[in-house]
Amino acid sequence: MTHPPDTQAAREQELVERVVASFDGAADERFRLVMTSLVRHLHAFIRDVRLTEGEWNSAIRFLTEVGHLTDDKRQEFILLSDVLGASMQVVSVNNEAYGDATEATVFGPFFVEDAPRIESGEDMSFGAPGEPCWVSGTVRGADGEPVAGARIEVWEADEDGFYDVQYSDGRMAARAHLYSDADGAYAFWGLTPTPYPIPHDGPVGRMLDYAGRSPMRASHLHFMVSAPGYRTLVTHIFVRGCEYLERDSVFGVKESLVLDFVRHGADEPAPGRTLDREWASTVFDIVLAPADAD
Amino acid sequence: MTHPPDTQAAREQELVERVVASFDGAADERFRLVMTSLVRHLHAFIRDVRLTEGEWNSAIRFLTEVGHLTDDKRQEFILLSDVLGASMQVVSVNNEAYGDATEATVFGPFFVEDAPRIESGEDMSFGAPGEPCWVSGTVRGADGEPVAGARIEVWEADEDGFYDVQYSDGRMAARAHLYSDADGAYAFWGLTPTPYPIPHDGPVGRMLDYAGRSPMRASHLHFMVSAPGYRTLVTHIFVRGCEYLERDSVFGVKESLVLDFVRHGADEPAPGRTLDREWASTVFDIVLAPADAD
Repeated sequence: MTHPPDTQAAREQELVERVVASFDGAADERFRLVMTSLVRHLHAFIRDVRLTEGEWNSAIRFLTEVGHLTDDKRQEFILLSDVLGASMQVVSVNNEAYGDATEATVFGPFFVEDAPRIESGEDMSFGAPGEPCWVSGTVRGADGEPVAGARIEVWEADEDGFYDVQYSDGRMAARAHLYSDADGAYAFWGLTPTPYPIPHDGPVGRMLDYAGRSPMRASHLHFMVSAPGYRTLVTHIFVRGCEYLERDSVFGVKESLVLDFVRHGADEPAPGRTLDREWASTVFDIVLAPADAD
Repeated sequence: MTHPPDTQAAREQELVERVVASFDGAADERFRLVMTSLVRHLHAFIRDVRLTEGEWNSAIRFLTEVGHLTDDKRQEFILLSDVLGASMQVVSVNNEAYGDATEATVFGPFFVEDAPRIESGEDMSFGAPGEPCWVSGTVRGADGEPVAGARIEVWEADEDGFYDVQYSDGRMAARAHLYSDADGAYAFWGLTPTPYPIPHDGPVGRMLDYAGRSPMRASHLHFMVSAPGYRTLVTHIFVRGCEYLERDSVFGVKESLVLDFVRHGADEPAPGRTLDREWASTVFDIVLAPADAD
């Protein structure tokens, strides 16, 4: 036999073991564990697909381009992690399922500290363009107890698909924080979420295009909910019927987070304000896991 | 049960399948295969180590730094691939074991096209500093037949640990090409190889340091051997007794490529020249696989 598969497999496996052993001297045990697992999976990938030298060269060129596009304003590596579902998988393993607790999803790059405080029922859009949307619900613990005083951060894109920080005029809009009341209830006016594309004029966008994938994110509104004694929840709510639910470019959609957004005519009375246009409403009841949940 | 592992594992697996399915529309079948394998292995890594959000952030920062250090002269992504053994594994899967054919190893970044031609027995060092070393051997096929006229490219670092192209004065030294004779024999004067570090003043060097690993490469001399009808061989020869053989920073060492370098006193006659210093010699017999070998 001139080409013994056993010899070949043994050579490849021996290399894997040699690389793994090179981390034996690492003082940081967690680092050693992470790096050796990375090595095993990376080598398994190369061996499984029999990666060619041309493909390896393409990968080096691709990563180089990703690196050169990345700066203080544009993070193409995060985008790459997002579209490979890696960011979402990191969210999954760090927010393990806990009974009926509300599921987490990706944080995204558009959160801002110190967004203005609004009172229950007030408007977080601050003039951002879009259809008014009344969002209300309760915050409860896993045993059904109301969570009073939970801090609720909300932020979203406007109907043109941009967050305030994407404009160069320094505006602050479509973001706020509020607190749940003594019964755990909360409510605010925001905008009916609309779809928008992730930045797709770089190598990651080209990869999506070559894969026949859309850069669009399903319509969503971001929530971050925290309260003492509970695990902080970072999530979105999604709009049932949005055409991108099944093909969200960063895999953030979970069925439990898809809500009905009810349509209301311009003549229907709106909570706490007078509107001369159509509006929407939705109910998002939140269940927080205990802080010591895995 | 408040924390059902089955639910959690199912959520994580469902995400993997969703990401894999996102490549269903790719027209390029090989691209689809490579990307979906990459996704499966990447997600398996994240799930196996339960990668934390802090670790994910560190990885993004590390890759960003690797990207920013990379330019036309410095390729930190290739260095990263090298020290994780990925480059060597790509070599392995593309140069499968074939009978007793000489094993391949990494190409490295220092090959130059159009190195000068020398005749058999001439000196390829062209004045580069180092101990003279007489290298000789034969080139044969897998059935033992001599390979006449094989093109043999050789290149190496000088005794200060630098290749000619690493100097800014445009010198050309310690590289050449020659041809095997009618019996497959070849011989040349070079330099006894000495160890040198890979560039280690960047993020990859910092990673090696944190892992307790050395940036040193085991002493070696590069060969690339080609002849019509045979698989082109890219390899090194290594020096038995070199202290870095067991911990070569890029995992290029294969036992079959470690040769005895015989020491010779200044008074011993040297082939074809008069030397007033110590010299070394080694024999490297090369076996080429057929061109159609996997």
